[in-house]
Amino acid sequence: MNYKIVLKILGVVLFWESLLLIPSLIISALDQSYEIKAFVITIVTCFITGLILKNIKTNENEMRKREGYASVALCWLVMSLAGALPFYLSGSIPSYIDALFETISGFTTTGSSIVRDIESMPRGLLFWRSFTHWIGGMGVLVFTMALAPLLGGRSVFLARAESPGPTFGKLVPKLSDTSKILYIIYAGMTAVTIILLIIAGMPVFDSFIHAFGTAGTGGFSNKALSIGYYNNIWVDWIITIGMFLFGVNFTLYYLLLIRGDWKSFIKNEEFRLYTGYVLLGVFLVFLNTLKHFNYDFSETLRYSSFTVSTLVSTTGYATTDFNFWPMFSKSVLLALMFFGSCAGSTAGGIKSIRVLVLFKALYHEIKHTIHPNSVQTIKVDGKSIDTETLKSILIFFFAYVIIILFSVIIVSLDNFDFMTSFSAVIATISNIGPGFEIVGPMGNYADFSNLSKIVMSACMILGRLEVIPVLVILAPSIWKKH
Amino acid sequence: MNYKIVLKILGVVLFWESLLLIPSLIISALDQSYEIKAFVITIVTCFITGLILKNIKTNENEMRKREGYASVALCWLVMSLAGALPFYLSGSIPSYIDALFETISGFTTTGSSIVRDIESMPRGLLFWRSFTHWIGGMGVLVFTMALAPLLGGRSVFLARAESPGPTFGKLVPKLSDTSKILYIIYAGMTAVTIILLIIAGMPVFDSFIHAFGTAGTGGFSNKALSIGYYNNIWVDWIITIGMFLFGVNFTLYYLLLIRGDWKSFIKNEEFRLYTGYVLLGVFLVFLNTLKHFNYDFSETLRYSSFTVSTLVSTTGYATTDFNFWPMFSKSVLLALMFFGSCAGSTAGGIKSIRVLVLFKALYHEIKHTIHPNSVQTIKVDGKSIDTETLKSILIFFFAYVIIILFSVIIVSLDNFDFMTSFSAVIATISNIGPGFEIVGPMGNYADFSNLSKIVMSACMILGRLEVIPVLVILAPSIWKKH
Repeated sequence: MNYKIVLKILGVVLFWESLLLIPSLIISALDQSYEIKAFVITIVTCFITGLILKNIKTNENEMRKREGYASVALCWLVMSLAGALPFYLSGSIPSYIDALFETISGFTTTGSSIVRDIESMPRGLLFWRSFTHWIGGMGVLVFTMALAPLLGGRSVFLARAESPGPTFGKLVPKLSDTSKILYIIYAGMTAVTIILLIIAGMPVFDSFIHAFGTAGTGGFSNKALSIGYYNNIWVDWIITIGMFLFGVNFTLYYLLLIRGDWKSFIKNEEFRLYTGYVLLGVFLVFLNTLKHFNYDFSETLRYSSFTVSTLVSTTGYATTDFNFWPMFSKSVLLALMFFGSCAGSTAGGIKSIRVLVLFKALYHEIKHTIHPNSVQTIKVDGKSIDTETLKSILIFFFAYVIIILFSVIIVSLDNFDFMTSFSAVIATISNIGPGFEIVGPMGNYADFSNLSKIVMSACMILGRLEVIPVLVILAPSIWKKH
Repeated sequence: MNYKIVLKILGVVLFWESLLLIPSLIISALDQSYEIKAFVITIVTCFITGLILKNIKTNENEMRKREGYASVALCWLVMSLAGALPFYLSGSIPSYIDALFETISGFTTTGSSIVRDIESMPRGLLFWRSFTHWIGGMGVLVFTMALAPLLGGRSVFLARAESPGPTFGKLVPKLSDTSKILYIIYAGMTAVTIILLIIAGMPVFDSFIHAFGTAGTGGFSNKALSIGYYNNIWVDWIITIGMFLFGVNFTLYYLLLIRGDWKSFIKNEEFRLYTGYVLLGVFLVFLNTLKHFNYDFSETLRYSSFTVSTLVSTTGYATTDFNFWPMFSKSVLLALMFFGSCAGSTAGGIKSIRVLVLFKALYHEIKHTIHPNSVQTIKVDGKSIDTETLKSILIFFFAYVIIILFSVIIVSLDNFDFMTSFSAVIATISNIGPGFEIVGPMGNYADFSNLSKIVMSACMILGRLEVIPVLVILAPSIWKKH
């Protein structure tokens, strides 16, 4: 491990974070609120530490895979450690573990919250809280792609370590160009969401908050009742569709918008599977909750669509307390929370592309059992999946399930009911936010022990960085000096 | 598909079943109980149908993999369809779906029951119910290995299709010899269990019942309180150790008893992992339930050891209602229920050997990520696991989890709490018996809808036959006439 390179990268991250904190400081200053001092201290600390670290002299040719993985995983931790300071120093969140949980939940676009009375939080902090979603939003992807040019040499490993999903191809030859294009699409789609929400009647500040949460598929709201507070059918549908769209692989938007290639979009197998299980989910939940909504078809459709979209896209907003829905709907939702949306989007979960490959692998295994001599390769969008990639996806699935299992065991020490512990772990590792029962859409994570909060924070980072890169930095051999 | 071969095999199975029903008929006759007629009708029907079908003329060289898989999966269904008749015809279980559930639960050595008042069931039926555990016990393995010689030719596929786990090597060159040796070990160990239970003070009839359940890792009892009824510390420990031992790969007993090879036994990686997580499980549950047992160390050890042993060996007896234990213990137990015992034993679950390979695969994936150029192969007991086998195990894991997920969704239609639906599905697919809450050790499966009972019956067969062979017969191409 070349520690200098890792420190330099962390310096760049902290430097940028100090700049990204400025809009929140401005809001605090306008409101003349008590958290100004906390923002100033955080910004100055990040700026100075960042400046010192980013000027460390390094031989950038020594950037290898291990430095890439270590800096990516540590970036998220360091950003969150620093980003938690405004909440903690202002006294708005008195426990630092809680503040850290909230910030990791923000940057990983999870949206699980430990705040009991969100509406009393000052606007500067609310803005920062939701802005972390937007920053984290394009995943690790764009963010560190913007860093990549600074590192030069073998920094392409950074992007590989962070790529959300197995099939995020390079769109254009130069990494920084890709980064810019994705960034523009992301910012453009966010702007459209903000404008539509304002037109629909949501206050301007709230529109920013909820557009950040939608774009990042995060889910932090500034209202205790989440989107349900507005009880506005236009807002509901704008966000329902927005969340669905931010769960689509951004490569497809590039192909559609820049190249006008709508065929690739519509024929894309991952997109089809994703759309397929979203529609099936809405259909099943719709049928199952009809009675709950007194057979009001349009109300049922509105709430079932919103809830399916918010959970499958791993956003986690709410318009109604789905805790009271029948168990069948909850199980369907739980399955969708586990699957998640497309790779190359801002969403979490296992990702549709992996689900697709896994089912194809199972189908081929069955076929191979009947016809042992036939040679078959798994294809997605006409391209073969090689054995190594397939093995990685299968191992990823195992790792994902095993982490859930072990995390549930530890979280169970708090002795909450099983659905609470189980759904809390799924909701954090899949970067969703709310689960069921105590951590349901109208509940929060405040009552968990610190141990559980740390385990679930780890789950959020594991989920966001797709497990293996985080496990890699736990291997002792990566830390050997050379 | 060569239907004639499949029918012939089913005939042999029915013929044998008619003979295996005779001991139960004798007990009924001695008791002069009302179910005699039901037994006679069943035996005559099985005998005649069996005799006709088993004399079908076939070209045994046409036995291929597909005929093997189809007959194995159908054997279990046909045996259960016939084996359910005594319960149904006698009126002891008025619903045929219920009787079928109970019989499948018996043959698959699951032990999930829909009987509300077990102690009013006549002894003949109780004996048959538990005897199905013992028959199913050596899994599909020995049973159809006894059939194999009748089929000749390519019938080795039968054994392959049914082999519980990936590493059940042929012990001796000739299949029928292997079958006999395993059968003798199995019968011998059962006899020892019966004798020890009688010495410990259990009534003779009950000793047979509970030895069948222990040997088959089934779990049916003739008492509502299960083993807890006797409140006998010797009985508890005999069964605790018995269940653990019946969860060990029988190949190891062969090596130990016939060849005196205790080194292979102790050095066996699967056995070590299995013993490891059993001891860890007992340790964790012991610590976590100390308070529940008022810090009585020996009581706590007795109950925690029994419960861990019964669930990890997928037996499902009970000495106490672990529904009242803290959630942490329940989560640990749930994880053990998922893992199960060794391949080549009478137990269910994912099996230790697969868990071992899966963790090794994850470890190698992490290593490979850090050192991409290093070539590594996964080894178990010094032997390399080839890529195809590894892929099969990984796909098996995915299939197992996905079947659980889909089954939970369907069972949720009954609108029971999540822990009930979730643990019921795990308890059936892993061939355990009881789960938690409504299906806890003192509860039963009677309240589920017929749909759920059918889904869980399918889970029991899927689990017992290790998923893929059952999925294979669902593929349309296997049923094409040729």
